Amino acid sequence: MGKQERSALTRAALVRAGGAVFSSTPFSRARIVDVLQLVGLTQGAFYFHFENKRALALEIINRELELMTELTLNVRDTSTNALSALSRMSQDLGRLIQSDPVVQGGLRLTMQSADEFPEVIGASYIMWFETISQIIQSGVTEGSIRSDIEISEAAEFVVTAFVGSQQIASVNPMWEGLADRLRTTESFVLAALAASR
Amino acid sequence: MGKQERSALTRAALVRAGGAVFSSTPFSRARIVDVLQLVGLTQGAFYFHFENKRALALEIINRELELMTELTLNVRDTSTNALSALSRMSQDLGRLIQSDPVVQGGLRLTMQSADEFPEVIGASYIMWFETISQIIQSGVTEGSIRSDIEISEAAEFVVTAFVGSQQIASVNPMWEGLADRLRTTESFVLAALAASR
Repeated sequence: MGKQERSALTRAALVRAGGAVFSSTPFSRARIVDVLQLVGLTQGAFYFHFENKRALALEIINRELELMTELTLNVRDTSTNALSALSRMSQDLGRLIQSDPVVQGGLRLTMQSADEFPEVIGASYIMWFETISQIIQSGVTEGSIRSDIEISEAAEFVVTAFVGSQQIASVNPMWEGLADRLRTTESFVLAALAASR
Repeated sequence: MGKQERSALTRAALVRAGGAVFSSTPFSRARIVDVLQLVGLTQGAFYFHFENKRALALEIINRELELMTELTLNVRDTSTNALSALSRMSQDLGRLIQSDPVVQGGLRLTMQSADEFPEVIGASYIMWFETISQIIQSGVTEGSIRSDIEISEAAEFVVTAFVGSQQIASVNPMWEGLADRLRTTESFVLAALAASR
């Protein structure tokens, strides 16, 4: 393995370990040494890749946003209709959040963004809002979603329902119960939006 | 004014000022002196009423829960039917959150409960869930709410939608836009639950 590959692996290991640490410890109390202990690396390795704890946290938040965005766009582009897209998005989000330490860390950090990371406040809401608006628009066009709604209001509602589900499940370790909660939420969201029920 | 009344007024002033401080500053960074400056009181007055910053914070959280519970029970007991109860609850919650510094402080503190106040985690969800379950049950009985739903799932959905609205608006100072957001959410919640639309 070349120097560059090793370096990329080390960086990825730090991001993953940082996700685990930040998902269980508030940013202000988390320590770089906690991250290093998880992966058996030295301070030198850390500072080669990140200026400080905040730089690692921002990297994790950005990676979480990327993963969420990829998932959302992928669902939009590979679903046969709008209702199944919304349903798949909900299931895939639940799976991603419950299984990926980087996403978990990113979510916890984002929940502290008002205090710690003002530069990313609301970033995930905006991303979701735009893609979900497109999905709902296509649902209205194809006739699967009610035509008597305002697209932007319907998208706001779907985002609200996802955020609420995530928020309530986030009080449990590892977001336990999120997938079930999203399934329930999704069934009512579809009932509210479907052209007929 | 007697000594006891003065003491009660001082305590209330500390709770109110604490609400304002905690609604804009994370618990770990907020200082007792910030609270005192807002009301022009001394350290002595503070420690007469509260053991420490944490005791004040818990009082604010409990007061917020009380106000939310009063509102919720009041709406339940004075509404003519379940759909108007859900609609009023949403409007009244928006008004309360946007106008009361104690509620605002309590909400921000509750958002930090996983890290700072594990004893109150999920308390407001449980309170809402129970009262909203009763409202939905009465709606099914009176025929205004669909009978093909699980009461507990429908209540979970309503709580999720409220929590999501609050959460998204909480990135704005003073929860700006919450009332509008709740109105949008509510219209879709009712569409999902109403016996006919």
